[in-house]
Amino acid sequence: MLETRSEPASLPEVDAEALHRMMEEVSVFGGGPGGAMTRLTLSREDKAARDWLANWLKNSGLRLEIDPMGNMYGFLDWAGPDAPLVMSGSHLDSQPNGGRFDGAYGVIAACAAIDAIRKHVARTGIAPKVNFCIVNWTNEEGARFQPSLLGSGVNAGELTLDFALARKDGDGISVNQALDDIGYAGTFGPVIPDALIELHIEGSAELEKKGMRFAVFNRFWGNVKYRLAFIGRQAHTGPTPMAERHDALLAAAYLIAELKGFADQAGIDLHTSCGRLEVYPNSPNVVPGEAVMFIELRSAKPAVLARAEAQLNEKADLCAKKADVGYEVRSIDRRRAGNMDEGLVALAQDTAAGFGLETLLLDTIGGHDAVSMTAISPAVVIAVPSVGGVIHHPTEFTTPEDRLLGAEILSAMLWKFCLNGNILKTMD
Amino acid sequence: MLETRSEPASLPEVDAEALHRMMEEVSVFGGGPGGAMTRLTLSREDKAARDWLANWLKNSGLRLEIDPMGNMYGFLDWAGPDAPLVMSGSHLDSQPNGGRFDGAYGVIAACAAIDAIRKHVARTGIAPKVNFCIVNWTNEEGARFQPSLLGSGVNAGELTLDFALARKDGDGISVNQALDDIGYAGTFGPVIPDALIELHIEGSAELEKKGMRFAVFNRFWGNVKYRLAFIGRQAHTGPTPMAERHDALLAAAYLIAELKGFADQAGIDLHTSCGRLEVYPNSPNVVPGEAVMFIELRSAKPAVLARAEAQLNEKADLCAKKADVGYEVRSIDRRRAGNMDEGLVALAQDTAAGFGLETLLLDTIGGHDAVSMTAISPAVVIAVPSVGGVIHHPTEFTTPEDRLLGAEILSAMLWKFCLNGNILKTMD
Repeated sequence: MLETRSEPASLPEVDAEALHRMMEEVSVFGGGPGGAMTRLTLSREDKAARDWLANWLKNSGLRLEIDPMGNMYGFLDWAGPDAPLVMSGSHLDSQPNGGRFDGAYGVIAACAAIDAIRKHVARTGIAPKVNFCIVNWTNEEGARFQPSLLGSGVNAGELTLDFALARKDGDGISVNQALDDIGYAGTFGPVIPDALIELHIEGSAELEKKGMRFAVFNRFWGNVKYRLAFIGRQAHTGPTPMAERHDALLAAAYLIAELKGFADQAGIDLHTSCGRLEVYPNSPNVVPGEAVMFIELRSAKPAVLARAEAQLNEKADLCAKKADVGYEVRSIDRRRAGNMDEGLVALAQDTAAGFGLETLLLDTIGGHDAVSMTAISPAVVIAVPSVGGVIHHPTEFTTPEDRLLGAEILSAMLWKFCLNGNILKTMD
Repeated sequence: MLETRSEPASLPEVDAEALHRMMEEVSVFGGGPGGAMTRLTLSREDKAARDWLANWLKNSGLRLEIDPMGNMYGFLDWAGPDAPLVMSGSHLDSQPNGGRFDGAYGVIAACAAIDAIRKHVARTGIAPKVNFCIVNWTNEEGARFQPSLLGSGVNAGELTLDFALARKDGDGISVNQALDDIGYAGTFGPVIPDALIELHIEGSAELEKKGMRFAVFNRFWGNVKYRLAFIGRQAHTGPTPMAERHDALLAAAYLIAELKGFADQAGIDLHTSCGRLEVYPNSPNVVPGEAVMFIELRSAKPAVLARAEAQLNEKADLCAKKADVGYEVRSIDRRRAGNMDEGLVALAQDTAAGFGLETLLLDTIGGHDAVSMTAISPAVVIAVPSVGGVIHHPTEFTTPEDRLLGAEILSAMLWKFCLNGNILKTMD
């Protein structure tokens, strides 16, 4: 367990009003009706949100740095150049027609937490033992560019910069160009923190079901993502005899049904999906010549994932044959399953206990930047409830009370570092 | 049978060089690599092709008129205001990444045929007994705006002008606005010809299989087109438990497979397809909240079509239930099955016989503007071979020899009207 050498008599106080106001301010950029948020990475809306963050950091006396992936870092260097670095933050990009809290909440809560700590230090005169860094990662969502976790992946050395900059969106615009277009290509980095705490909305309904308010993701699922193209032949849907068609969409339809079958067989250990399907030429009276599936297989168990991938390859072949089309795998992205830092998990549990709260241990199935960062840094994701478990939808919502709670627990965790230095090094 | 009162000693001579040159000229507008053609209706490319046609008509002494749908008519009024009107033409719009001959050939061949007749009249001094009209119909393809046959449908009174002008493309641009944007909204019309002959590429391989060169479409299939939306719920493809997903694309996949099944059961009498599928938000890691299918059922037999439509409704319901999503039918378009004008079919057969050719009688399964026009005018579609039966694909091709043959037979058919007046009225 942790030895927290001195327990603070008082904790930094998060400014609830400022936290909610900042959430409102950022929600303007890309916000639509009914809670909708479309802030695709490196878009005009993302630029506006970035500019807002840059201003906040500067006005709060933090040093803004930007790396070649456009990741934004706000440094509070108050403990000297040799002090440990503790990082917190998340991402400001969203899904198309997504929600306001996924990502943005984690950035804003980090701002509010660091602000609280800064004021608490000023009030108490305590000498801070760590430096802090607020981070906004580029393209966490993977909606505009694939793969997801692109910015954190490069910083963590899991992806090369060249690879990441060359990724293109559906209009053929590269990450490189998009960064140039909004003026967010920097030269800083990489940044290797001594600890990373990412606060996020839960994104499922486990807390709600159990009547709890705080979770720690202590394990992350692995995944395999295929971009798989069925290649048929365009033809007129009128005269072309059914027997002579090579319908790429038909093959994709067969495989989408199969994907659901894999998950049905594997039970709760496997999630499968095809969230994006590109159909060419996608004209009502043309037999589709190409259908590109964006397939995800996710599991915490490597054996389950391996079996699902084998099934995918087997069934892709069968579905292609059944529809009399060809196919090719255009890309495969893999992320290993693993565990978050045990010390940070324990710190989160201890801290929550100080708030009188029990901590729910969860798997994180969706990717988080903190998952990428486990490659180079102790990292953890902590979470507060999503109402109804909703995420990636305009009605995604976390109550103001839970948002405040998350920021307070985050602030308290960061405060323990601030008081004691790198407490992870003193673990059993 | 027809009484063609005087058989011409000589026929108008189609200028092969001009025919092929015009085909090349028009293929520039929207032409891409490998024979690809993307000339979506009322696009910049379509405007360029229209301007080309307008110039040709004017330079050839024809009177250009444009109706409120942007349908272009080139009149050769040389037989007086009470003379019958014989129309020929097709459409200049194409599918996305389609071919060069579907539609454009029919317009160009009409130009070449009328030009040949004009020169023959000048040479022989024969008094023409009919007026001619070359037509270019708007939005035959139904690729940019649905339904297809929009321009001919309005002229034939099968669709209202208000309905047609309000149709929107995938970007929300209406036909009305698109017409204004390219300056092709006119006030002329409607035009009710005494006969309409549309020359087209076959679009299937029946002629090729039989080693023949000329076909007449004497029967047209009916169709029922549904725009059917499955409505699920957006969610994250990571954390959302499989059992709690409402995946609209999964339901669409089930129904696409069922559609193929209907056709398998019905044999060659039924064609089914889903050529266009719109997925929202279409992001790799979001469970699709909506999937809109553009479904076509086609048959020459009303009972087969009715049964397929009943199956469609039954299975849409089942597929929605299976994927735990809702659905709604957003639009239904129907076209009745029917027959082309018997007199024009006979005229085509007789004329081809004059060229030493047997005529293959075919069904037309894809829509043609001449099918719309059967509502108000005797009409027929005549066809020359498509190499390999290819249509709606960049490799769509009709040999120069067959293109010339088609234009010659068309010209000869038109010439019989020119010599004899409305020969359809003298039929048995």
